[in-house]
Amino acid sequence: MSDNRPIGVFDSGIGGITVLKALRARMPHENLVYLGDMARLPYGTKSAETVTAYSLQTTKHLLTHDVKMIVIACNTASSVALAPLQKALAPLPVIGVIEPGADAAVKATKTGHIAVIATEATVRVGAYVRAIHARAPDAHVLQEPCALFVTLAEEGWLSGDVVEAAAHRYLDPLFNRKNAPDTLVLGCTHFPALAKTIRKVAGRGVRLVDSAETTARAVEDALDIQGLATKRKTRGKTKFLATDSAERFARVGGIFFGEVIRPKDVEIVDLQFG
Amino acid sequence: MSDNRPIGVFDSGIGGITVLKALRARMPHENLVYLGDMARLPYGTKSAETVTAYSLQTTKHLLTHDVKMIVIACNTASSVALAPLQKALAPLPVIGVIEPGADAAVKATKTGHIAVIATEATVRVGAYVRAIHARAPDAHVLQEPCALFVTLAEEGWLSGDVVEAAAHRYLDPLFNRKNAPDTLVLGCTHFPALAKTIRKVAGRGVRLVDSAETTARAVEDALDIQGLATKRKTRGKTKFLATDSAERFARVGGIFFGEVIRPKDVEIVDLQFG
Repeated sequence: MSDNRPIGVFDSGIGGITVLKALRARMPHENLVYLGDMARLPYGTKSAETVTAYSLQTTKHLLTHDVKMIVIACNTASSVALAPLQKALAPLPVIGVIEPGADAAVKATKTGHIAVIATEATVRVGAYVRAIHARAPDAHVLQEPCALFVTLAEEGWLSGDVVEAAAHRYLDPLFNRKNAPDTLVLGCTHFPALAKTIRKVAGRGVRLVDSAETTARAVEDALDIQGLATKRKTRGKTKFLATDSAERFARVGGIFFGEVIRPKDVEIVDLQFG
Repeated sequence: MSDNRPIGVFDSGIGGITVLKALRARMPHENLVYLGDMARLPYGTKSAETVTAYSLQTTKHLLTHDVKMIVIACNTASSVALAPLQKALAPLPVIGVIEPGADAAVKATKTGHIAVIATEATVRVGAYVRAIHARAPDAHVLQEPCALFVTLAEEGWLSGDVVEAAAHRYLDPLFNRKNAPDTLVLGCTHFPALAKTIRKVAGRGVRLVDSAETTARAVEDALDIQGLATKRKTRGKTKFLATDSAERFARVGGIFFGEVIRPKDVEIVDLQFG
């Protein structure tokens, strides 16, 4: 049996395209539908209730594309909305990025000292701290919200003095201390775009963990176990949907995707007024 | 006749509180209702259609508070939604911040060279350029979108190396040139919070124009002309409404207001799911 239905992927905007890219690299034969909620981004500064309501609306739209699985390609939405979405959509499988990211962090650390940088909302609910402690109860976890990194990534200011100064301001208190972390979780899908500068400031010895790759692996495993994978050997299609700003989605999303996205490839959908 | 109905003021979030503060300073006897659309901020990176739809929803809610006038305390919404709102709400007066800001800029410049910094959306529609040219057809106007300034103001990073490096990156191309502007319009309500650093980087001789004060004057004139002012001599009340994040609204809004705002003073309203 080959299940050729697409995998539905959503994010508050374009950061989740780093996860989409990892899914496509690992499972090139699967069809993918990506929905970026550009009209209401960012999620990371908003309340859990609001982010959950937005995530439910977004996945409801993805269901109209007959998806076989939902991937929450957003750390904030994964932090607060995973359980509500799993409950609302059961038996449809829903996978977030936090658990795979915590897995990777626990495997990467040697000293048990882990730092997590994320949005305000992800830090507030402590999703990574809980997920890491569930796997390694003795781990020491520090976390820091880094709102400016989101805007820097969206501006395309990936290196240079501004991002370096911001990185020092956020990271020095985490790493200039006794028992400094040896592992740093990039707990927002925007942050891998700044990895070079983050690595430079955190120190060469620090391992950076981003959840895109490990989430793709978790998705592949879940498809296999549940018999939902495609058996087709031709290349799958990727469909782009956004709630606003096709031009910006194409321009910045293309950087994250590593391939050109044209504005006319982005279909605008209306979740609020439609 | 004394008209004691409140003035309705709205913004995408908390930046507009700088305008609210100017209104209160100039018209202490008026009642004010401020609505910050925290659930969908920022407006500055979104399309004109989306910002207009949000602005209509927001003002519709303010009408339930029996307001006598609407003040759009947001440059982005003023840029794209002023005419649609005036049409939809007529004969209720609607005042934006662009026209008063352009007035102030034209009065401030001696050389006729003016720079405007604003959000991506405000720059894209060229609202200040048009408004300035309507008053001074020979003026030379440069503009630059400065997305990072919004996040810096919301992070409370108002001075120091990060904001200075960002200011150099945005402003040096505007001011390190022949016929450099002598006047700089702060075309986003967040930017006055960074005025000290902006002034330092732009150069001491450059006049900074922010539209809060001139908008307050325009509102006072409109109330007088239309006989809508209160005649009461007791201090007016200020009511705070937000679509999300009362805690964040109180914390950051208090900085912009210059007075403590408590989270319990912020009433959460639901424009999308209510």
